[in-house]
Amino acid sequence: MDALSKIASVVGPANLLTDTKLTARYLVDERRLYQGRARAVVRPGSTDEMSRVVRICYENSIAMVPQGGNTGYCGGATPDDSGSQLVISLERLNRVLEVDSSGHSMTLEAGVVLASAQQAAVEHGLLFPLSMGSEGSCQIGGNLSTNAGGVVVLKYGTAGDLVLGLEVVLPDGRILPGLSALRKDNTGYDLKRLFLGAEGTLGIITAAVVKLFPRARSSCVAWAAVTDIEAACELLARLRAESGDTVTSFEYVSSLSLAHVIAALTHVRQPLEGDYTHYVLTECATDAVPIEQAFATAMADGLVLDATLAQSEAQRRALWQIRESIPEAEKRLGGSIKHDVSVTIIDVPRFIEHARQSIEAEWPDARLSIYGHIGDGNVHFNVLAPGNADALAFKRSHGDRISRIVHDLAHEMNGSFSAEHGIGQLKRNLLAQYAGDVSLELMCTIKRALDPKGLMNPGKVVALEAPRASDGIKRDDRSG
Amino acid sequence: MDALSKIASVVGPANLLTDTKLTARYLVDERRLYQGRARAVVRPGSTDEMSRVVRICYENSIAMVPQGGNTGYCGGATPDDSGSQLVISLERLNRVLEVDSSGHSMTLEAGVVLASAQQAAVEHGLLFPLSMGSEGSCQIGGNLSTNAGGVVVLKYGTAGDLVLGLEVVLPDGRILPGLSALRKDNTGYDLKRLFLGAEGTLGIITAAVVKLFPRARSSCVAWAAVTDIEAACELLARLRAESGDTVTSFEYVSSLSLAHVIAALTHVRQPLEGDYTHYVLTECATDAVPIEQAFATAMADGLVLDATLAQSEAQRRALWQIRESIPEAEKRLGGSIKHDVSVTIIDVPRFIEHARQSIEAEWPDARLSIYGHIGDGNVHFNVLAPGNADALAFKRSHGDRISRIVHDLAHEMNGSFSAEHGIGQLKRNLLAQYAGDVSLELMCTIKRALDPKGLMNPGKVVALEAPRASDGIKRDDRSG
Repeated sequence: MDALSKIASVVGPANLLTDTKLTARYLVDERRLYQGRARAVVRPGSTDEMSRVVRICYENSIAMVPQGGNTGYCGGATPDDSGSQLVISLERLNRVLEVDSSGHSMTLEAGVVLASAQQAAVEHGLLFPLSMGSEGSCQIGGNLSTNAGGVVVLKYGTAGDLVLGLEVVLPDGRILPGLSALRKDNTGYDLKRLFLGAEGTLGIITAAVVKLFPRARSSCVAWAAVTDIEAACELLARLRAESGDTVTSFEYVSSLSLAHVIAALTHVRQPLEGDYTHYVLTECATDAVPIEQAFATAMADGLVLDATLAQSEAQRRALWQIRESIPEAEKRLGGSIKHDVSVTIIDVPRFIEHARQSIEAEWPDARLSIYGHIGDGNVHFNVLAPGNADALAFKRSHGDRISRIVHDLAHEMNGSFSAEHGIGQLKRNLLAQYAGDVSLELMCTIKRALDPKGLMNPGKVVALEAPRASDGIKRDDRSG
Repeated sequence: MDALSKIASVVGPANLLTDTKLTARYLVDERRLYQGRARAVVRPGSTDEMSRVVRICYENSIAMVPQGGNTGYCGGATPDDSGSQLVISLERLNRVLEVDSSGHSMTLEAGVVLASAQQAAVEHGLLFPLSMGSEGSCQIGGNLSTNAGGVVVLKYGTAGDLVLGLEVVLPDGRILPGLSALRKDNTGYDLKRLFLGAEGTLGIITAAVVKLFPRARSSCVAWAAVTDIEAACELLARLRAESGDTVTSFEYVSSLSLAHVIAALTHVRQPLEGDYTHYVLTECATDAVPIEQAFATAMADGLVLDATLAQSEAQRRALWQIRESIPEAEKRLGGSIKHDVSVTIIDVPRFIEHARQSIEAEWPDARLSIYGHIGDGNVHFNVLAPGNADALAFKRSHGDRISRIVHDLAHEMNGSFSAEHGIGQLKRNLLAQYAGDVSLELMCTIKRALDPKGLMNPGKVVALEAPRASDGIKRDDRSG
């Protein structure tokens, strides 16, 4: 019996997809940067099935590409174009197994959609705080494998920080058990952390225990025009101190990004009268009183020029919609050359100013979109083609050089070229370029030790062999 | 030139100790469980010196034992008795390098004493929350290497959770740089996590960047008698919800432990009139209003029998002193057989009840001391010899069996035999016994990959070879 037949006998023939009409959606990434091929797509229905499938792949040297909601920005879940890899979809592992209200934890399978996980917590009167634009389709396993960020990192940390326990199928099919809800457990190396952010290159996360929190009894959303980016950073420090450290989100929106949203999405309106250059959107898990006081002082001190506090759930949603519509607006305006940079908070103003000057000096007509999770030092510094230019041609001609300038600048400032999006295929060369030799050697040491046959999502994150020509970015497809 | 001479030329002769009068304090652990010997004690003064010392050891196959404040409970920083190992003290790497107020981070060398780190944050108007009984002498490098717990884990996490960046000298002397204050950085495997909790078996932490927080504008300390342990757990959930999730500490003290404190330390007084069986000590980073309300409701609902809120800093200190005096009281009463168990919070009452019954059935006259960080599910279930017995003889005769019963029970409840103290030498056999095969194999895989010559704190955490007879516990010395 060949390997695929063995796999079919484990998962049932209906869950081994080879028909190209059925497999197509698993073979291209969210941003359509990569079009892969696959031997088949398999959908195990339990950890045991996953273990047996991986074991068969291991014994037959079949490369595996784990895939969650397939919403990543870096091609980490897309197979190469050899047609020899097996895509392993987590979508049938979609059960919330337990919510422990008194222990503030939830056990769930890796294929649970993030919005469903949030909902399960709400049904128990609790909060699972992880939140991001793709939450309606991304899966918790993918969130953990990419250590996803989102809009509440400031208060709750990244996806990986929310994990108490993890179950992983290792590259040879062994199950690493670890569905523990213990808050403290210092028994040897913290194995689970190896897999958080490893993008499925060291094993496949099949289930997790995550932290839950009490739901905030009150919260407060504000939109403010600030004098400059330094003022935004100072405002954040004041809000943290004066709100009892309850700032959950602190987002920056430049007037450039706001203008794109208003241009592309006609139903969105400016929250403030008057034109300003720099805006912040903040949410605090407290009532409005300390926030109003902090804003009043900040206006008196010249940090804040104008501000509005949402007075209703509809107003809150309207404010958040501006921030969350930026990627869609960029897409409608022809797409952007995206960057996901982080620097320390004190360096954010300098980074933005230098990057802006460098890009404008060489491409004075290019349109910028500058926004991000400024509270985490995470800036999305995106570049759109000039309004009269062919967006695709601009990206093809200038994308590499623009990205190089932005990433070099971040690197010079001890920043990161990938704050929350990860590496996947897209940024593997950047990792090789910017990570120090020792870090890169250590990553390769770990990859070799855990996946000696190199079968687990090969070609992603770290490359143990020279990259193949077919791994290159198909720039003509670049969009979003 | 022999290896020691080379090392002396790196650090200067004054920092290579061989005189037994000078080396003695590095060769025995805090609890005096282990008496080791060493080739020498070396005290590098910089990361560069550390790197060169480790390189010399690597080239000459000299085993290294990194040592911080030497306050650990598991012998993780004590050399074996072969006399061939080199103790590497971090004590000269004791500089706070930078405090970034706006970025809420602090960069410091590994040998900084925890209390000094706290003080450096205070001087910048911020909080470094890690706190524990040994803070006057333990060092941040040891805290991170053991992923120390302490009294604020509930709100701020363990020592490892407070780390943004880490610098490590690897077993062959290479420096893994990583003194980054970035809040988000998804560029490949999270290497720093490997070393947090690895107890110096994979490399030596030389410096770190840690998170700081705004200082609480108000806080509130309460001592309460609760109906039972279930009521304590319910009270915690209510306090979390009603205080805006600002509970920083939630400690359990049984009347048994309280009685030991009052018997051994004559200046300590009962905070409440009347005798109760179960007490909690809690601190919340909020003003007293929501806490008073929560306690009033909890009293009406029968969860709380009596409670007192500290009205002054002196009262706060007095309440905390009770909790923090328990280990000292046990020591004065002849020492205890210590356990550092964790279970999920919902299982804490059942664990304590079963453990108590099991021990009392076999040793009806043994004195128990039950307390711990109940908010983290972390119970210190300690057993003292009967009042009329020879404490040392009791421990020698019954210690193993008592510990076996307690640890087996925790294991049956999916708990941990080492919540916050780590493994060191003391619990290596327990790790081999209770960790699953796959976990243990993976730990060995990592140890072999990172330290192929087995020179970095050998015999601690995981053993790649059979334990030698001289690794055994010298039970007669057991105290504390």
